[in-house]
Amino acid sequence: MSDRKEFRDLATPEAAREAIDSLDLAPEPETVPLAEARGRVLAERVDAAIDVPGFDRASMDGYAVRARDTFGADEADPAELDLVGAVHAGAAPEVTVSPGTCAEVSTGAVMPEGADAVVMVERTDELGADGEAETGAGEGAKGDPGRIAVRTAVAPGDHVMSAGADIAAGARALGPGTRLTPREIGLLSALGVDEVPVEGKPRVGIVSTGDELVRPGEALDPSRGEIYDVNSTTIAAGVEEAGGEPVLYPHAGDDYAEMERLLRRAADECDLVLSSGSTSASAVDVIYRVIEERGELLLHGVAVKPGKPMLVGRLDRGGSDAAPESDRVGESAYVGLPGYPVSALTIFRTFVAPAIREAAGLPEPATATVEGRMGVGERYGEGRMRLMPVGLLDLDDGDRPLVHPVDKGSGATTSLVEADGVVAVDPDTEYLDRGETVSVRLFSPDVRPPSLLGVGEDDPALNRLLDRLENPRYLPVGSREGLRRLRDGVPDVAVVAGPTDREVETVDLGGWTREWGLVVPAGNPADVTGLGDVVDRDLRFVNRPTDSGLRRSLDDALDALADERSTSRGELTEGIAGYDLTVRAFESPARRVIAGAADVGLGLRETAARLDCGFVSLGEQSVTVRAAPDRTERDAVTALAAALDDPADLLDGLAGYSRNSRNDP
Amino acid sequence: MSDRKEFRDLATPEAAREAIDSLDLAPEPETVPLAEARGRVLAERVDAAIDVPGFDRASMDGYAVRARDTFGADEADPAELDLVGAVHAGAAPEVTVSPGTCAEVSTGAVMPEGADAVVMVERTDELGADGEAETGAGEGAKGDPGRIAVRTAVAPGDHVMSAGADIAAGARALGPGTRLTPREIGLLSALGVDEVPVEGKPRVGIVSTGDELVRPGEALDPSRGEIYDVNSTTIAAGVEEAGGEPVLYPHAGDDYAEMERLLRRAADECDLVLSSGSTSASAVDVIYRVIEERGELLLHGVAVKPGKPMLVGRLDRGGSDAAPESDRVGESAYVGLPGYPVSALTIFRTFVAPAIREAAGLPEPATATVEGRMGVGERYGEGRMRLMPVGLLDLDDGDRPLVHPVDKGSGATTSLVEADGVVAVDPDTEYLDRGETVSVRLFSPDVRPPSLLGVGEDDPALNRLLDRLENPRYLPVGSREGLRRLRDGVPDVAVVAGPTDREVETVDLGGWTREWGLVVPAGNPADVTGLGDVVDRDLRFVNRPTDSGLRRSLDDALDALADERSTSRGELTEGIAGYDLTVRAFESPARRVIAGAADVGLGLRETAARLDCGFVSLGEQSVTVRAAPDRTERDAVTALAAALDDPADLLDGLAGYSRNSRNDP
Repeated sequence: MSDRKEFRDLATPEAAREAIDSLDLAPEPETVPLAEARGRVLAERVDAAIDVPGFDRASMDGYAVRARDTFGADEADPAELDLVGAVHAGAAPEVTVSPGTCAEVSTGAVMPEGADAVVMVERTDELGADGEAETGAGEGAKGDPGRIAVRTAVAPGDHVMSAGADIAAGARALGPGTRLTPREIGLLSALGVDEVPVEGKPRVGIVSTGDELVRPGEALDPSRGEIYDVNSTTIAAGVEEAGGEPVLYPHAGDDYAEMERLLRRAADECDLVLSSGSTSASAVDVIYRVIEERGELLLHGVAVKPGKPMLVGRLDRGGSDAAPESDRVGESAYVGLPGYPVSALTIFRTFVAPAIREAAGLPEPATATVEGRMGVGERYGEGRMRLMPVGLLDLDDGDRPLVHPVDKGSGATTSLVEADGVVAVDPDTEYLDRGETVSVRLFSPDVRPPSLLGVGEDDPALNRLLDRLENPRYLPVGSREGLRRLRDGVPDVAVVAGPTDREVETVDLGGWTREWGLVVPAGNPADVTGLGDVVDRDLRFVNRPTDSGLRRSLDDALDALADERSTSRGELTEGIAGYDLTVRAFESPARRVIAGAADVGLGLRETAARLDCGFVSLGEQSVTVRAAPDRTERDAVTALAAALDDPADLLDGLAGYSRNSRNDP
Repeated sequence: MSDRKEFRDLATPEAAREAIDSLDLAPEPETVPLAEARGRVLAERVDAAIDVPGFDRASMDGYAVRARDTFGADEADPAELDLVGAVHAGAAPEVTVSPGTCAEVSTGAVMPEGADAVVMVERTDELGADGEAETGAGEGAKGDPGRIAVRTAVAPGDHVMSAGADIAAGARALGPGTRLTPREIGLLSALGVDEVPVEGKPRVGIVSTGDELVRPGEALDPSRGEIYDVNSTTIAAGVEEAGGEPVLYPHAGDDYAEMERLLRRAADECDLVLSSGSTSASAVDVIYRVIEERGELLLHGVAVKPGKPMLVGRLDRGGSDAAPESDRVGESAYVGLPGYPVSALTIFRTFVAPAIREAAGLPEPATATVEGRMGVGERYGEGRMRLMPVGLLDLDDGDRPLVHPVDKGSGATTSLVEADGVVAVDPDTEYLDRGETVSVRLFSPDVRPPSLLGVGEDDPALNRLLDRLENPRYLPVGSREGLRRLRDGVPDVAVVAGPTDREVETVDLGGWTREWGLVVPAGNPADVTGLGDVVDRDLRFVNRPTDSGLRRSLDDALDALADERSTSRGELTEGIAGYDLTVRAFESPARRVIAGAADVGLGLRETAARLDCGFVSLGEQSVTVRAAPDRTERDAVTALAAALDDPADLLDGLAGYSRNSRNDP
């Protein structure tokens, strides 16, 4: 094995936080156009540079008058004034209101000289030039000026907004640190501001260091062990969400000299450089070398699980010539994240995102943390802090949502969407009891926990059913395991295919029947006719795991065949090459057959039809959706039941599918 | 007055909501690069197209073995295997593991043919070619292959993630309607997806219809009654926040033919067209004409305050030749918003933003609505629903935040930032009592209510003090009004300048002294020497309102002068031209002097110095920050007191400012 750094003296999580806090991630403030300022944070106070409004402004449609001329006027004894003209919004007044006169004004108009109040049009009558009242106030003003009867007294300033009354030049409008939402953008617009000084977005460079990583969209060669790069895109999105500006550096593959150049360049160009733990020792060595030559390693190794291999350091700028000279001063922060996606996102969420937010001047969103109650008991006590990925389920019962640990083992990317956030379990905590309150840091403030949690068999009709629900979560753990989990009290429903020996109390919400059997290459070149051929002939088989309903039906069929032949199932399966080779999903055996890696796969007629394979039927099995008895009244469960009741095109075009009335064991 | 539509039959708010719901705002789904997909909503289900991992993958550093070869091995009796080579992550295996052999593997490596399990490096010893144990596992593997002692038994599949075990090709990965946060982007990356089908963003055209409106950044002519266009930018930001794509159309001013062309073009190009109520009757007429000619008016006038003039309709496409032929089919929705900024944002938030969210497939954010308790009692009962703008203040006492109505009258843009959201008060509600629970729709989910609410005098040192606090809100209502509001129980602190006759129980947190007097043009051309000149000579004066502390000190000085002259203050002020002309902020009188609109203004030495004016001192007055007695323990109030205690550069460079020990009345 390679020479590799050991993480003997692990830092505490607090020390890791302090180390990151000691780094300067904050970029210089910048000026952005108002149209792009939403969500940004004011870097300095903005004072009003102008009066708003900039003039004495009529705030009603009506007549501008000298208030003194209306004193004593009322319905019985209106004041009569000569109409000398009109002022409309957006026009300079061309009239002066002298004693005994008035001018028509629209809301928003500049008050004409001499006038100090507005009488609402509803309290006036137009008399015409002859002094006779005309029909309806506010009509027919297009012709000759006439006389206006004012049926109310007004005081100076009535229905006038004086210049600067809204906000006056020199007044404090918005303070530093203000987050710009639509309303602040409104106030800035009123002040005529079209460029705003805002806190800069920290530039966060993301350097991808695994030899085996390929960017999404590019071609993948699994035979070389290539996998898609999950962390770069996930962390880039997380950086953006935390108010930073992600910069993805090209992937250097196994060119370590290039990787070193990229790290130096990222340090020159960014406020923070992130890499995610490589499985390649050489890549880690490059990172150490770059930090040791130009920078400082503040800590390596933190006593958290996951995240032990986390690195925190500083990188001096000036190490590359890619950036302009002016940028190559000062230093950049560096954090090395673990390699597995859920671990990387967990460490990013716990230690790095808060630092980016802080540097961007953004508060932690209120929705980023929720209180929940443990839905199961869980044992700990590993001597270091455990950052436990958990899923949430809100039972709409007014209580805190149910929390259930998601631990699919190292490296599962599906944990990303099966968990909603992370619970930090203290090193001293040995056991979290069911019902205990825990605080869940959501992976992001926009994470929306599911409305419904289902577990069990995977099935194409089920996929369609799930598409009709609002935000369900479904874990395809197989029928047996699904029932086990339902019994343990976390999920709402389990989907069960074929026979099962588990005794779990459930409420049957409905289901369908699917045809299962042997998937063979198109045209059935080996001329497979039934299970006997699989047992007797030299055919390569692909199976499903024992938790799956398909496997249970297969084993029942093998039992029947063994009875027929007066032997045991074990005897029969000994002769099946690949009986122990189980693959994960309902289409997986068929795909192995198509790839030429097997001759026969366990599967559905629907899969064979969809993937243009041959099919040998072995029977039908029911698929039933079963609810936990205490969840049948939940909105999401009744919605599921309703979707099941209304088959519509749920089964349309699915080969071998039918509605079932019977629910066979 | 012009011929104008009357809103006689007002629709109910429910009818308005139904009318908007009946419009089709939803755009076609689109495909976006994964890097731009954050925050978008999946338009269809994404199934896995590949197995993840795509190969049987070592999940530990160690040795790939045939499990059978390790059966029975333990610490006392290790199994010894020949090392035949190594497989690293990102490389194709070049070795085969036959019985009795093993291959070194790194985490992530492809399992070599023949091997079915991995032994962790920690449970092995390297023996060297000679069979002797070497120092430390995993060291010195660079030389000759040797033999490996395996000190544990493993079962087939141990420390191996089989192909498709994370997610298998054909399995459901993400359902339609899923909001894409970093974690979903991670899963899509793992599947190699680099383009995602997402719900389209509704295009929302914003047509600005007021003759008097000028876009921020352009020059303003207040003498023509011009004001900056607040609604276009505010609503554009709101559209963006709700998940739409705002399109701002150029401002047509008073060119009604052009406005008509713009409306038709917006209908062709957008899913929804918004205009905000114009004060110009002609502009409203244009809107009616366009809708009547090509479209349908669903309702005009809604029984809400504000929002009575709201319009809802449809506009047929094809009315302009600006858009490509293909776009000019179907119809666009139209909503006319009120003209005043707070009213426009209120109606937008209440009726339009939910419809945009719905069309974009986005849920209403959890933070968009909060429960609060009325901080004051308020009378209603106007026979229609009142959408009341309110401010919030969270007292950190575990109780719901305090809610206080913000009603600065029509058209105040500052209400935008003094209110945090809207309470919908039912038409039947006659009175909301202090303490009553109300539901506040925040103007946007990112609105963060203030940490501290202050009221009172405006002052430049106070502005600096506020800059040091985290998210304060300060309403410059003057000293008198500030004390009144403090007594009524909503604000935390009042800032009081000069003498006051209000008896309000407060806790003095500290303050300073400022020099006040007469601001005159630079060089004091009229040779003003004191208050006597203002009283006796023909000088144009500008005053501050009676609520301000500056005005109180001025009136006290006038009282003293009247005593000296054995007359009354009233007699003296009769002779001051402009004594009743009061302007809003502490700099406003000085600015009028600079503009040549006055000869003398009431103001501060600091203002005169800053604006390069002359100054005639009339004295000093104290400015004190006073807390409500029940708020002194609040974090934000103690932070304010601490900032006051540590003057630092609070008063540095402010002319005429000093720390005061005395707190003079």
